[in-house]
Amino acid sequence: MKLKVRKIPIEAGKIIAVLNKNDAEKLGVRTLERVRIFGEKCEIVAIIDVSEKFAKEGEVLLSQDCFEIYKIREGEIVKVNPEERPESVKFIRKKLSGAYLSYNEIEKIIKDVVEKKLSDIEIAAFLTALYIRGISMEEAENLTKAMIKTGKTLKFRKKPIVDKHSIGGIPGDKTSIVLVPLVASTGLVIPKTSSRAITSPAGTADRMECIAPVEFDAEEIIKIVNKANACLVWGGALELAPADDIFIQIEFPLGIDPMLFPSILSKKKSVGSQYVVIDIPTGRGAKIKTVEQAEDLGEDFIELGNRLGMRIECVSTYGEQPLGHAIGPALEAREALLTLQGKGPEDVVDKVCTLAGVLFKMIGRGNKALAKRLLYSGKAYKKFKEIVSAQGGEPEIKPKNIPVGNKKLEVRASRSGKVLWIYNHYIASIAKAAGAPKYKGAGVYIWKKIGDNVKKGEKLFTIFAEKASKLRSAENLVKENFPYVIGKGYGTEMKLKKIPEEKREARIFILER
Amino acid sequence: MKLKVRKIPIEAGKIIAVLNKNDAEKLGVRTLERVRIFGEKCEIVAIIDVSEKFAKEGEVLLSQDCFEIYKIREGEIVKVNPEERPESVKFIRKKLSGAYLSYNEIEKIIKDVVEKKLSDIEIAAFLTALYIRGISMEEAENLTKAMIKTGKTLKFRKKPIVDKHSIGGIPGDKTSIVLVPLVASTGLVIPKTSSRAITSPAGTADRMECIAPVEFDAEEIIKIVNKANACLVWGGALELAPADDIFIQIEFPLGIDPMLFPSILSKKKSVGSQYVVIDIPTGRGAKIKTVEQAEDLGEDFIELGNRLGMRIECVSTYGEQPLGHAIGPALEAREALLTLQGKGPEDVVDKVCTLAGVLFKMIGRGNKALAKRLLYSGKAYKKFKEIVSAQGGEPEIKPKNIPVGNKKLEVRASRSGKVLWIYNHYIASIAKAAGAPKYKGAGVYIWKKIGDNVKKGEKLFTIFAEKASKLRSAENLVKENFPYVIGKGYGTEMKLKKIPEEKREARIFILER
Repeated sequence: MKLKVRKIPIEAGKIIAVLNKNDAEKLGVRTLERVRIFGEKCEIVAIIDVSEKFAKEGEVLLSQDCFEIYKIREGEIVKVNPEERPESVKFIRKKLSGAYLSYNEIEKIIKDVVEKKLSDIEIAAFLTALYIRGISMEEAENLTKAMIKTGKTLKFRKKPIVDKHSIGGIPGDKTSIVLVPLVASTGLVIPKTSSRAITSPAGTADRMECIAPVEFDAEEIIKIVNKANACLVWGGALELAPADDIFIQIEFPLGIDPMLFPSILSKKKSVGSQYVVIDIPTGRGAKIKTVEQAEDLGEDFIELGNRLGMRIECVSTYGEQPLGHAIGPALEAREALLTLQGKGPEDVVDKVCTLAGVLFKMIGRGNKALAKRLLYSGKAYKKFKEIVSAQGGEPEIKPKNIPVGNKKLEVRASRSGKVLWIYNHYIASIAKAAGAPKYKGAGVYIWKKIGDNVKKGEKLFTIFAEKASKLRSAENLVKENFPYVIGKGYGTEMKLKKIPEEKREARIFILER
Repeated sequence: MKLKVRKIPIEAGKIIAVLNKNDAEKLGVRTLERVRIFGEKCEIVAIIDVSEKFAKEGEVLLSQDCFEIYKIREGEIVKVNPEERPESVKFIRKKLSGAYLSYNEIEKIIKDVVEKKLSDIEIAAFLTALYIRGISMEEAENLTKAMIKTGKTLKFRKKPIVDKHSIGGIPGDKTSIVLVPLVASTGLVIPKTSSRAITSPAGTADRMECIAPVEFDAEEIIKIVNKANACLVWGGALELAPADDIFIQIEFPLGIDPMLFPSILSKKKSVGSQYVVIDIPTGRGAKIKTVEQAEDLGEDFIELGNRLGMRIECVSTYGEQPLGHAIGPALEAREALLTLQGKGPEDVVDKVCTLAGVLFKMIGRGNKALAKRLLYSGKAYKKFKEIVSAQGGEPEIKPKNIPVGNKKLEVRASRSGKVLWIYNHYIASIAKAAGAPKYKGAGVYIWKKIGDNVKKGEKLFTIFAEKASKLRSAENLVKENFPYVIGKGYGTEMKLKKIPEEKREARIFILER
């Protein structure tokens, strides 16, 4: 069938062809099936969307994406034929049926994901099947390799290349900003690419951006790392394992995270990491609830790392409350800077030095004590300023010069006692309601932590916002879900929570990279 | 956030709001999350699609569907707030985790599907989970009930109401067109609603449409059935269990069919059926391969029927080759008419009379012998003419007056021997390539059936098409996948098929209702 191409200004994220109902019937094709389009200078396989009115008879509408990838022009007359499902759909069905997939099958799926050839429902079925059926270690290895192969990689001159990663879930975790310069100050190469927040009030890239630019292309990053031995940049535009970014878009609304291992390790391997320490925040309010669960997860990380030629060590860290006091990009950037200046909260310092120590031991170049010396001697801070400078930031920036929101609300204790519990996800929700991460100055500063004694009327936390309306939203959330539990002591007042008769609120889903 | 409504002429099949990237960030929402839109006269919960260029800052684009369902007008200024996931998504996640769902949970999901509140990926995850985790009998019952409750129902004066259904998969199955008038001629009420082809060359509605109109609204159907005791109509526009139609749109591209029972029985119960005979075509080229599999399936149908207050009997029928000789809407309509005139092929007659006999016995009103008498006495044909007349067709239509394609190709045997095998799905593909079901005169007429002796050069089958290009496509398919196997006899030449080293062709997926 001959049809005329019309462009629709939609970024569909996949190769979509909208056909009129009558044309589709003549071709014998339906929505979500495929056609092959023969243009003058290209052949396109597109997923069909059948429309009664939007597409007129005789025309085929192509989304923005097609024009970016293929040499097709508006108004061109193209031949359109029905096209079989791609082979990768067969392999997805195989996984649905419970079979294990081979490397070739996995590569075909990942390749078609990256090339926008699979529809959202096909990707959703694949991720659901991985979630329900589970992934064998060999599949995880193959998924990781295929995700690396279908993306770009960064190559650095100097070795060894090390990295640190957290599986996330703890509000206020600014560890990387302190750890990266600390490690780099010993001469190790640590090219840290990180994400922006997905479900949290701040990602490492959001925090760092309050101090220096974080968006660079591959060439620029190589220059920065050659100069400073390290970087603290956003990985999003580098096309490292781009399949992962597409999977996250589907995983997030479904609230499932079956690709945790391949997702993290493909990014690490893509920048050539040889030694990686993985932080597993552990606690009842974290993603991983117990040390036993952390052990299971850690063992799998280590084995998968081995298979990929990376040495990995994992540390289960205390994750029952936010790290430090500050939550939100600017507040956390301030706290990270203070820590580098030797004035950080105890827990932040301990976490940074513990993880750095594990990394040093892996390579046989020191321990936690070394990490502390590097921090308190100012060497880490000196290196940080080199990194900031290499990334085009102002190295002498002072914490108080990082602007935070000027709309504030102080929340005080309604009784005296001991802080028994802080709900991580309520704190995160309040910071997000206040505007984080979009408004960098928004967030929460917590004054009291678990185990602290408080008096009635004492400040528990302060909410910062840039906009009054956002502050009000955050205030409403505090009333709905108060994030602190204050009591006499552990196990003295026995009621934890009365289970409501009616519906429970939705569980929080944490998806961070 | 206040935004201005703009209409986009897309029928999305769900309630979609396209937001500009900057507005979405300010709201803290992402693609596939949701917003609540407060209009002057309505509140709409929409699924978000974030766009960089298509939606400008300050506007919200709503698809056609919104304007059909809600009192919203273009240019209206609306308030847009982030909205939590609907509860049904929580229940879908519960099924993903392997839990069984209660009636209330299932009803919430089905209701949100029908009201277009769930995104395709959420529905895909649900169907994938049902496919992998399986459905308990109680869940099947609850799914069926919820699907009936969220749709319309038809009520007929006279009783008992009976029905016949095939799970499909056999090309050329024109049983219903003969069985319905035959059964109705005894005074039983049989309001047969059927579908158009989904994956086959013809559905009952496509065949019947060659003889009489099949598209009616509920009121018209009630009139037809009150007059003729029966109908042979398309069920698509009646909104009987409309959730099913939405599920089929996702099941088909994924090649899974987890909702077989609820799908079929919800439609039957929605028209008030009390006694139903279900045909399970069985054979190596059919959906169900062995009698044992058919027994398992049949037992579940019977139990589910009981739970829904319907008596069901199931018959496993020979399904290794097409039924009769004709495949394609018009060719099959001719053959059905010939059968009603007492000149039908042996297998068509036997199938019709067997199934009708089972139905008669269920109600205690006869048997297969009665069915044969009704057919050969002309009573069934007389009733058929009443139905045709009631549906506004020409009752005296002759088989030869039903037009078939005038482009023909005869395919002959390349060796002498016995017909050992006919590939059902190759025959179906050839008929579809020739243009069926869109071009009603297209199809295949098979001259030789399994067990027949053939001489080299003798006609095996004839392809009919309305368009020369379609005939060529069908001819190419014949070369690629020859649908007949001719040999000396069973088990004398031992090779069935050499398994190819490289890729195998995709398995055929049959989805018929």
